[in-house]
Amino acid sequence: MNRPGEFDLIHRYFAPLADNYPNAFNLTDDAALISPPQNQNIVVTTDAMVAGVHFFEQDPPYSLAQKLLRVNLSDLAAMGAAPHAYTLTLALPENWTEQWLADFSAGLAEDQAIYDVRLIGGDTVSTPGPTTISLTAFGFVDKGQELRRNGARVGDDIWVSGFIGDAGLALGLITGDLKHGDEAAKETLTARLRLPEPRISLGRELVGVATSAADISDGLIADLGHICHASKRGACIQFADVPLSPTAQSVVADKPELYRTILTGGDDYELIFTAEAGREDEIIRAADIVDTPVSKIGAITDDPSIRVFDKFGAELNLPQTGYAHF
Amino acid sequence: MNRPGEFDLIHRYFAPLADNYPNAFNLTDDAALISPPQNQNIVVTTDAMVAGVHFFEQDPPYSLAQKLLRVNLSDLAAMGAAPHAYTLTLALPENWTEQWLADFSAGLAEDQAIYDVRLIGGDTVSTPGPTTISLTAFGFVDKGQELRRNGARVGDDIWVSGFIGDAGLALGLITGDLKHGDEAAKETLTARLRLPEPRISLGRELVGVATSAADISDGLIADLGHICHASKRGACIQFADVPLSPTAQSVVADKPELYRTILTGGDDYELIFTAEAGREDEIIRAADIVDTPVSKIGAITDDPSIRVFDKFGAELNLPQTGYAHF
Repeated sequence: MNRPGEFDLIHRYFAPLADNYPNAFNLTDDAALISPPQNQNIVVTTDAMVAGVHFFEQDPPYSLAQKLLRVNLSDLAAMGAAPHAYTLTLALPENWTEQWLADFSAGLAEDQAIYDVRLIGGDTVSTPGPTTISLTAFGFVDKGQELRRNGARVGDDIWVSGFIGDAGLALGLITGDLKHGDEAAKETLTARLRLPEPRISLGRELVGVATSAADISDGLIADLGHICHASKRGACIQFADVPLSPTAQSVVADKPELYRTILTGGDDYELIFTAEAGREDEIIRAADIVDTPVSKIGAITDDPSIRVFDKFGAELNLPQTGYAHF
Repeated sequence: MNRPGEFDLIHRYFAPLADNYPNAFNLTDDAALISPPQNQNIVVTTDAMVAGVHFFEQDPPYSLAQKLLRVNLSDLAAMGAAPHAYTLTLALPENWTEQWLADFSAGLAEDQAIYDVRLIGGDTVSTPGPTTISLTAFGFVDKGQELRRNGARVGDDIWVSGFIGDAGLALGLITGDLKHGDEAAKETLTARLRLPEPRISLGRELVGVATSAADISDGLIADLGHICHASKRGACIQFADVPLSPTAQSVVADKPELYRTILTGGDDYELIFTAEAGREDEIIRAADIVDTPVSKIGAITDDPSIRVFDKFGAELNLPQTGYAHF
């Protein structure tokens, strides 16, 4: 095989992603260093994606790399942290190509510029199985100021950022489980699935304001469930207040049963958070500053269940648990 | 399938590994926190292992987990860092069993006690391919005191810890490339391959003493090559001074050509390091304190190549580069 070895590959595609981070030592040492500012802690999160499970082997590597980085940055956002750096682990199948790697690293380079992060280490191995990619992201947050899942209190408002359900609808359209004639709608929704926008600036603005936060990766109900579970509380949601994109509205217009996909589909990577009922103005102001739409969709309850009501006050039927299963 | 979902699985097998680390939040939050002491930096390293490539699918999960952790701790040792915590990413095939996971997490629990580290996060996903395991380890080192690969100077002595070549010989015996009648020898060497001993205490003692260091994962020549490359120097090695275990000595006794396996086989996870020629006593004292044997095997040269000589002064023939290829 006339392809570069691991060291050439690191030198060619990955070392350039580390070249403005002296403590990554050009990726030639045994490990890298992180030196957090004195009053900040390091926030650490890891997410892995497997071809055939979390993405399609034929997905464009440029946006795949961005998605891998962004789903991790979304976890940092949920903690109110500022992104700093990341390590990358790739298991590549026999038939990997240099073009794939060139595109993958170019996608990372673009996002490094957008999110002010840099590669500081990793590992590249071969696998007889599918492409498997994993990333560990590091952020900084002021000591004691991190957003947690366990702080929601009875009566707190429940908020979400952006639009909910686009990614779940896109997945249905791609797999064919969901039929919709409009190709433009499919393209718009698929772009949202492929390229989530981690709500980093909003997360940082919510430090000291939100009582709890999580990112919506498993689905609105599941991730709200994580907050409720950690906070030992329940929630009541008004479905009419859950913000849908214009495209999602057009898709669900004649299929009201899609409320389930909206509420339980994952991969939106919006933030869901709670805040004291009196702080509505403050939250809208914070969201305005970072140009991120937010919507109030319900309230935290004492009853430890998650209930969703339609605009007529009828309760919507939902799966017992929205938890993503392994 | 009557098996636990991802959240049950985390709760059952992994949360107990995080339960004395409050900033891991019982693995129920979006991310974990690390709070380094004020005058220390965080050292970060990642290694991945794929069944069929880096280990055998039927390898005992208990020692496999220990090996995954230890190869990462070995990288921390090479930087002179004290281990602190780690994150774990598992991609498990369809046919995973609870027994496998129970054994795997028990192996981690044992090593957590030995090395004073704890699990703080990770991800568990399913894969249609082979078991793929990846770990990111975090250590602490005093600011500016980390051991690097680039500090070797002409005339420095070259040292190694422990015995060299056991793991390479074991691999040969397991694959059948190497024949040796003695089953006890095969067992002893295989144990070394399965369960390396990261030289953490030695690494910490070498801070302020060694001019460069690396761990021997790719092979003695390859990892010395990394030091020489980073330091822009070469090396001259006396093969007779390379320390072989009694078992390795018995295996190579009638097969002198196995010097290649000794010098280029990887997976020993000993340290290779350099120090000023005058500091021999200091190094032996440091090694004594931590009860780790060390051997002086050669010297750093101006000529940018790595040359190995036998006891008669004849140069041994080696592959042009010992670098592990991808």
